[in-house]
Amino acid sequence: MTLTNQELRDRFAPFISRRDADRHINIFWETQPSAFSEPGKQFIELSGGMPHTSFFPIESMSVNILTAPGSTDTINVPITHETPSSLALKHTLQYALSEGFQPLIDFVRAFVTRLGNVPQYDPSLWQCLIANGSCDSLFKIFQTCTDERSVVLVEELTFVPVISNILATGAKVVPLKLSMRDDDQGIDTTYMEDLLANWETGPYAAYDRPKFLYTIPTGQNPTGLTQSVDKRRKIYALAQKYDFVILEDDPYGYLKFPKFNHEKPMENPYISTEMTTEQYARDVLMTSYISMDTDGRVIRFETFSKIFAPGMRLSFVILNNFFYEKLLKFQEITTRQPTGISQQIVYSTIHAMAPTKNTDDVIEAWLHWIMKLACSYTDRRNVMLDALYNSEAYKRGLYSVVEPSAGMFIIVNVNVDEKRAPVIQQMDELIRVMDKHGVRAILGYKMAVDREFSKDHLNFFRLTYAYADNHEQLREAVTRLSDSVVEYLA
Amino acid sequence: MTLTNQELRDRFAPFISRRDADRHINIFWETQPSAFSEPGKQFIELSGGMPHTSFFPIESMSVNILTAPGSTDTINVPITHETPSSLALKHTLQYALSEGFQPLIDFVRAFVTRLGNVPQYDPSLWQCLIANGSCDSLFKIFQTCTDERSVVLVEELTFVPVISNILATGAKVVPLKLSMRDDDQGIDTTYMEDLLANWETGPYAAYDRPKFLYTIPTGQNPTGLTQSVDKRRKIYALAQKYDFVILEDDPYGYLKFPKFNHEKPMENPYISTEMTTEQYARDVLMTSYISMDTDGRVIRFETFSKIFAPGMRLSFVILNNFFYEKLLKFQEITTRQPTGISQQIVYSTIHAMAPTKNTDDVIEAWLHWIMKLACSYTDRRNVMLDALYNSEAYKRGLYSVVEPSAGMFIIVNVNVDEKRAPVIQQMDELIRVMDKHGVRAILGYKMAVDREFSKDHLNFFRLTYAYADNHEQLREAVTRLSDSVVEYLA
Repeated sequence: MTLTNQELRDRFAPFISRRDADRHINIFWETQPSAFSEPGKQFIELSGGMPHTSFFPIESMSVNILTAPGSTDTINVPITHETPSSLALKHTLQYALSEGFQPLIDFVRAFVTRLGNVPQYDPSLWQCLIANGSCDSLFKIFQTCTDERSVVLVEELTFVPVISNILATGAKVVPLKLSMRDDDQGIDTTYMEDLLANWETGPYAAYDRPKFLYTIPTGQNPTGLTQSVDKRRKIYALAQKYDFVILEDDPYGYLKFPKFNHEKPMENPYISTEMTTEQYARDVLMTSYISMDTDGRVIRFETFSKIFAPGMRLSFVILNNFFYEKLLKFQEITTRQPTGISQQIVYSTIHAMAPTKNTDDVIEAWLHWIMKLACSYTDRRNVMLDALYNSEAYKRGLYSVVEPSAGMFIIVNVNVDEKRAPVIQQMDELIRVMDKHGVRAILGYKMAVDREFSKDHLNFFRLTYAYADNHEQLREAVTRLSDSVVEYLA
Repeated sequence: MTLTNQELRDRFAPFISRRDADRHINIFWETQPSAFSEPGKQFIELSGGMPHTSFFPIESMSVNILTAPGSTDTINVPITHETPSSLALKHTLQYALSEGFQPLIDFVRAFVTRLGNVPQYDPSLWQCLIANGSCDSLFKIFQTCTDERSVVLVEELTFVPVISNILATGAKVVPLKLSMRDDDQGIDTTYMEDLLANWETGPYAAYDRPKFLYTIPTGQNPTGLTQSVDKRRKIYALAQKYDFVILEDDPYGYLKFPKFNHEKPMENPYISTEMTTEQYARDVLMTSYISMDTDGRVIRFETFSKIFAPGMRLSFVILNNFFYEKLLKFQEITTRQPTGISQQIVYSTIHAMAPTKNTDDVIEAWLHWIMKLACSYTDRRNVMLDALYNSEAYKRGLYSVVEPSAGMFIIVNVNVDEKRAPVIQQMDELIRVMDKHGVRAILGYKMAVDREFSKDHLNFFRLTYAYADNHEQLREAVTRLSDSVVEYLA
């Protein structure tokens, strides 16, 4: 049947927590524009408790932006109270709407539409909501949707602060097995299908059936795994069959890499093929869950943290009208509005990257920036993998590596001998040896949702190649890691 | 007895909601610095999923700041990845600590200490927490502290979005009567004392005794009322006697005005006395609740929204260590950190206002800016009061005015005839007449917590003098208001 707003309400009302029913907004201001129109006379607002713009200490600003990641060429972007006219300082310094500034919403919407990261149903039934970072939006979604009766499926190893937010609503989390095979990365769909088909006789029979799946489909944190398109289609079909909503958290989606070439470790197809943004968008980027969504059951979280800067605290959510209204209402009485100055800087920077203000040109310029970032990350990934494969510890079989094709992380599984001591104890000891050698990584077991469930996946480190100063530092870090493992295990 | 962290925990544990007990943070990263130290070798971090700074599109920026509100003189403030060295872009664009950047925390702490807006107990037992706006911090405090068992005292007319946040936790709100007499502005302490002394036989006997008072003590929203120091002392004594916590929301505290002079309406003592910041701080600014606090029972909310710009979404909370840990933990898994770029701009701007980087000089410069703002607001308040007192409707006794000595708001009580029609209906009709005349204000009844309780206070409009373009527009607005009231009532 054709989706409508009414149908969205009927379909998703059961996905709302009892908490949301307690959330009422007291709107005390008039939201309708005045009908006043008298030639030569201006309507006067005495309503909003807003300082006049002359009271803001900032008269204007300018931002020097890079023409490409790592470049030294810059473009100066002037921003004043009146310019750019589409989004000027006098507005962004002021109180503003909770959903974000319309020009930024329009850009974001055009951008995700260009990449096909939009639902298949009527475009009037979904929205892009600008927000203060995906972490906060996820918190708000769980507060809105889950309570003591709710069950959320999650990857067995995941970004655990999100788990804190789920548990804080009283909901339960149920881990899903991850496959780490090169040809089958991510959620183990055989396990998942079996779990769902036999829920009432399975290990979680005491719980209700799950209403949500929280997943990081591309460059997963901490594992670096990327789900294939086939896997995504299978999981979406399961979502339809067993009626759950998919929360697609995709901070790393744009940092997508061609496959690592063992013969030519430093090969970077972004450079060697002179890749165009067209090829990048079509052949490299992954098909998102939201692009498969015919039902309104996918909520997609994107952020500017990894492709612009975390200090902006700026992100957006793509979601159907029903969930949108709920999340917007929650923003209105809490964070109130995404930071205006962040919206200003991100909007102005992206627009300054383009030769014209034509939307297609701006999208193309931003896509170009992002592709260049992905290219740099590919180099870093190559360097680290190359260093790992050539390391002493690897050659002696003391650890194995899971190859990422997206994101910021590589995991290294250390072949500890379980008979010697508990795995966690050994990993704790090993990280102290690493500290002595001058290198630190994340202890994988700390990102397990349930250590008993993931008892075969507690022996890894999450390494990032994102933060090092240069390639030499990455190689040096791997040498220190390898030396530590050799010292500890050999 | 001397306050200690243990004593704070014991004393305030009963002020924590059952929700907080469900809030556990999964910290998966190492929080201790490494002990690694080897000459000529640098410790290498592969832990944090942070982009290298060369991936941020911003190379540098510069902000042109005003030397005084409304001035056209500007100072150029350069900000680069390395400067100012105390807080540089490479840090503020990056992921950072949830409590805010230490240099900004230090400044804020020194600033409130200079003004005496700090508790009386041991300085090691309280903190300044940087946050994303007071609205969000209040939301987080209520989530942390209140639940179905809780009762919160509030002014009968208040900033109602906060009420939404209290009710959303399941807590009850109990309105307190407001006195609008010039010589007794704000919470009616006789009523309050009686209510508390006879709680078990009073109108709210079915509720537990209140654990919190939420108050806007200076330039209250919507009434513009400012509580005298005596009143504050009485209320603090009640807080001690009946053991409740005071949530002091003080967005307007710095916008404090000398009393309106009916003989010389445009008199502005900031100008006529060439007021110094010393006099402003000592004689004009109000004594805050937190400055009276010996017990840890005041939590103070300050914001940069009214004295810098709302679009920064930057604020801070002054609170004891026990509540601090709770609120910080909540920030960590939600908004994650106050916007870095906002902290950068606010910090850099304030420091650029001073002739040296000496903290006393920076405090003095910022105080000077704030005092100039208060001076401009005094002019605007004077203009609007003068226009109101000279308006046709006032002269015909159709409305009265409550004189503010702080903030952004004046309320006008319209003398509607209750026999003619319900007050709310008449106010709704009147605002439509105002719309026809080209002016809009806030309907006071929409800011009542309980319309039955406040049935004698439903006949007012909240006007702001903050937002008008100039004094002429303020006068024109009042003329239109007056014309509307005359047309409707006469």
